[in-house]
Amino acid sequence: MLVPQSLLALFLLASVEGCIYRRDEHGVAVSTFSYTGTTGPLGWAHLAPSNGLCSNGTNQSPIAISSSSTPTLSGSALPVVTIPEVSAGEALLENLGSTLEVVVNGTLKLDGVDEEYKMAQFHFHTPSEHRIDEEYFPLEMHMVFKSASGGVAVIGVPFDLSDSGNSTSLLTTVFAPIASVASPGSEAPISAALNFDDILSAVQKGPLYSYSGSLTTPPCTQGVKWMVLGQPLDIDVKTYKAVKGVLKFNSRYTQNAPGEVNLVQYAGDGTATNSSDPTGTGAAFIA
Amino acid sequence: MLVPQSLLALFLLASVEGCIYRRDEHGVAVSTFSYTGTTGPLGWAHLAPSNGLCSNGTNQSPIAISSSSTPTLSGSALPVVTIPEVSAGEALLENLGSTLEVVVNGTLKLDGVDEEYKMAQFHFHTPSEHRIDEEYFPLEMHMVFKSASGGVAVIGVPFDLSDSGNSTSLLTTVFAPIASVASPGSEAPISAALNFDDILSAVQKGPLYSYSGSLTTPPCTQGVKWMVLGQPLDIDVKTYKAVKGVLKFNSRYTQNAPGEVNLVQYAGDGTATNSSDPTGTGAAFIA
Repeated sequence: MLVPQSLLALFLLASVEGCIYRRDEHGVAVSTFSYTGTTGPLGWAHLAPSNGLCSNGTNQSPIAISSSSTPTLSGSALPVVTIPEVSAGEALLENLGSTLEVVVNGTLKLDGVDEEYKMAQFHFHTPSEHRIDEEYFPLEMHMVFKSASGGVAVIGVPFDLSDSGNSTSLLTTVFAPIASVASPGSEAPISAALNFDDILSAVQKGPLYSYSGSLTTPPCTQGVKWMVLGQPLDIDVKTYKAVKGVLKFNSRYTQNAPGEVNLVQYAGDGTATNSSDPTGTGAAFIA
Repeated sequence: MLVPQSLLALFLLASVEGCIYRRDEHGVAVSTFSYTGTTGPLGWAHLAPSNGLCSNGTNQSPIAISSSSTPTLSGSALPVVTIPEVSAGEALLENLGSTLEVVVNGTLKLDGVDEEYKMAQFHFHTPSEHRIDEEYFPLEMHMVFKSASGGVAVIGVPFDLSDSGNSTSLLTTVFAPIASVASPGSEAPISAALNFDDILSAVQKGPLYSYSGSLTTPPCTQGVKWMVLGQPLDIDVKTYKAVKGVLKFNSRYTQNAPGEVNLVQYAGDGTATNSSDPTGTGAAFIA
């Protein structure tokens, strides 16, 4: 394809400017935690700054959502989310090592909460972190919002492979430059406009499961208002494999139900009991 | 399609006989462990009979395989595997709750081991349990072999979605009756012949990673000779989604490297140190 030189110059300028803007702001901070070995999810409590909540918090995320018992939001209880379209070349796809992230502007208004939340970023996990009626999905998007007083609300959107080969257009756009961000610490401009209409329509349609949980990464801060879309959106094989080839694996293991003992505490406690081990002697005898 | 009555009768007889044969033998024993909450992987040490190895064994599976450091087998060190074709209708797809399993006959001969292993069964995990250079795959098959003296050897075969829509014919055959085994405890005859030629050719081609690990399910018995195919085979979206819709999620979290501390011990030990937490004070200060 022949491109007029003026247009090409404009595109290069936009790309470079986008890059410089973000790099000047803070660059891409590569995460110190991982999903493997002693820096993986079972080692997060040992990472500095100390993240004890990861191993002793009792409202941790992700969880196994139950369509019969996890509360859902509907009608006026649904959040009001606004994410203006981002012009071509203005957003950057960043590889933080632990995830692929994009910083965009947006707002969230929760029913019964006066304070408005501002969108911080959205990022991805593969495979999905939340499960719905036990089932996982190949990809999950987290749209993260923060309030001035420090509140955090996250909308989780699962994606499943489509038999027809359909994909959600936002994913196609966001991941178009993925080959350029294979290495942790790298970033690349997203060269087409980002439009959230399809995602936000799905969120308004629901079901939208709601519970109080945590960040799924260190420091595993609790009090996070989670809203998880119950109906997965489409992703195609090509996009999925490209994302998986870069992210490799970044899904925290499923946590205990909200309010129940942290599974790390449970696993390490040889005297705990449960219905399958009424004598409470499970681990102690073999050790 | 019109089927001659004699053929139809023969088919029904074979199906019913298959069912009765296996049910009379032992039926389908539904697993008492799960992949969620206190009966999930972090609770396995509490299940009876006591499975302390799950939380304190130092050679646990699955692991994150490294193409640069995990040993591979080649040439005469490759295992000699023989799995005779199973005639149509002779094998049963069984839903154990924790996995989908098929019992077939076969033999395995390991280099340098006099004793022959006999195939016990093969079964599936989604997503994959092993990771290769950090990356997971949508499905992993485990072919389990046992020796008369109690040795266990497992060949793990990862499957990835194919851009072209191709699938491995053995999977298509095995999962054809999946709609009939949606409930734990159910089983259904596999109505076409099972041929392992493609799988075994791939295993002979390698790379075949080799390490000493454990069962990935309770009682997490160690000393298991693992051989994991490094090159994933194909699965199509339709088969994958059908399998995931039944299995939901049955993948143990990635264990520490062979010989290293069990991650449950590490997670629960506030005084342990690692390179990211040289003071060893990680969890203790927050608790």
